Amino acid sequence: MIRYKIIIEYDGTPFCGWQEQDEVKPSIQGSLQEAASHFLPEKVTMFGAGRTDAGVHAWGQVAHFDTEKEMTPYQVCQAFNAWLRPLPIAVVGCEIVNQDFHARFSAKKRFYEYRILNRRARPALEVNRVWHVPVPLDAEKMNDAAQIFLGEHDFTTFRASQCQAKSPIKTLDQFDIKKQGDYIICTLSARSFLHHQVRNLVGTLKLVGEGVWDKDRVVAALEARDRKAGGPTAPAEGLYFVKVKY
Amino acid sequence: MIRYKIIIEYDGTPFCGWQEQDEVKPSIQGSLQEAASHFLPEKVTMFGAGRTDAGVHAWGQVAHFDTEKEMTPYQVCQAFNAWLRPLPIAVVGCEIVNQDFHARFSAKKRFYEYRILNRRARPALEVNRVWHVPVPLDAEKMNDAAQIFLGEHDFTTFRASQCQAKSPIKTLDQFDIKKQGDYIICTLSARSFLHHQVRNLVGTLKLVGEGVWDKDRVVAALEARDRKAGGPTAPAEGLYFVKVKY
Repeated sequence: MIRYKIIIEYDGTPFCGWQEQDEVKPSIQGSLQEAASHFLPEKVTMFGAGRTDAGVHAWGQVAHFDTEKEMTPYQVCQAFNAWLRPLPIAVVGCEIVNQDFHARFSAKKRFYEYRILNRRARPALEVNRVWHVPVPLDAEKMNDAAQIFLGEHDFTTFRASQCQAKSPIKTLDQFDIKKQGDYIICTLSARSFLHHQVRNLVGTLKLVGEGVWDKDRVVAALEARDRKAGGPTAPAEGLYFVKVKY
Repeated sequence: MIRYKIIIEYDGTPFCGWQEQDEVKPSIQGSLQEAASHFLPEKVTMFGAGRTDAGVHAWGQVAHFDTEKEMTPYQVCQAFNAWLRPLPIAVVGCEIVNQDFHARFSAKKRFYEYRILNRRARPALEVNRVWHVPVPLDAEKMNDAAQIFLGEHDFTTFRASQCQAKSPIKTLDQFDIKKQGDYIICTLSARSFLHHQVRNLVGTLKLVGEGVWDKDRVVAALEARDRKAGGPTAPAEGLYFVKVKY
C-alpha cells in the first residue's frame, strides 16, 4: 500500500462540511472519495486534518489515503482535479508519505483565519467569504482581549455541545486580530481546536469590539467553563482552514 | 439639483459590464439606475469613472448622478444597497459634490489590479476572480519588462479595435508585478487607460513570464503601433478596478 498526503483548497459554501451527513449537500470528504473511485482500484477512505463545518473554507486542508496504485504526486493532483470538476475543490499539492503519517494525528499545528467585513455596506465581491458586521468594531480592543486566551486553558465555554474531544483543555499559540482597510483579520494557531472553538471565540470578541463586553467579562466567561457564559457563534462563512504543520 | 458621488464594489461575473448592451445580462450602470428609480423622483443617469468590461470586477468604481431629492450620504448608500439586493453590487461610500465634479472627466488617477493564479491546480476559492495560468511564470522577468511601458507612449499595440479614445497616447505611472505565494499581482495606475489596455499588457507580459518572449520583443511590439504585434488579451476575470483619485 502507498500512502498519499494531499493538500486541498475549497469553497465551503455548497458543502455540508468535511464529513458526510444525512443531508442533500455533498461533503468534502465524500466528494474526494467519489473522485478517487474513478481512478483508483479500491474504495479509499480520506482522513482529514480537520473536520470543517458546513460553509467553512480551506486554503490548505490536509488529508491522507492508502492505495495499491502507483502514481506520481503530479498524476494524483491532475486526476483529482479532473474528476472533482465542477465542484469548488482543488487538490493543490500531493506527496507520498510513510505509513506512520496520519493527517489528523500527526498534525503539530493547525492555522485558522477568520475574516470580518466591518462596514455598513454588505459584501459584493466577498459574498459567503466573510462575516459582515455593520456596526463599528474596535479591532485593537478585540486583539487585546484575544490575548487572554493564549496558552493552556479549559475552553468549555467556547466548545460546541456536540464536540467529541475527550478533554476541553487546549493550548492556543496565536490569536492576532488586525484591521486591514474595512476588514478585520483574526489569525489563530494551536495543535488542535475544539468543535466551534474559533467561531465561539470570534463571536465573543465581536462583543468586545462593539463595546458591549469588557475584558473582565471575557475573563469571567472563560473561567465559567459553561457554554452559556460565552458569546454567540460567529457564522461559518468567515472561517478559513489555512494550513497544517507536521 | 444635488450631485452625489458614489463608490461601488461589484463582482463583474454576472454582468455584461458597466454599460448597457443588447444582451441578456444586466449592466452595472443599468442596475444602479434601476435601483435609483425606486427611491428617486426622476430618472437618473449614472456617469461612471471607468467603463469596465463584462466579467471585470471593482473594489472602488466611482459614479455620479444628479437628483432633486435631498438625502444624506448614509441614506443614499442604504437605499441603493436595499434595492440592489440580491445583485453582487454594493455602494460602499457616498458624498455630496459640487456641480463641476464629474466621475469620468475629473479623475486624476485610476488604479487597476490584475491577479494571476500561477499553479497547476485550478482555483477553488477564487473561481472567476483570477486568471488561472498553469505554466510557471517568472514574475521578476515580467516586472522587469513591465517597466518598458512606464511614461508616455503610443499604446496602439495594446488597444482594442473598438476603443473610442481620440488618441492612443497615454502615460502609465505605475506597473508593478509581484509574486505572492501562488499569485502574481499586477498593479497599474494612470490618469486614464485605453480599452483593453491593462488586459492586453498583462496578456503580453505573460508571454515574457513563460519565456516565449524576451524584453526586446516587447519593445518591438510597443514600437510597432499595431495590435497584431501584441500578445493576446488576458481574460476579464483577473481584472479589478481598484480606486480613482480626484
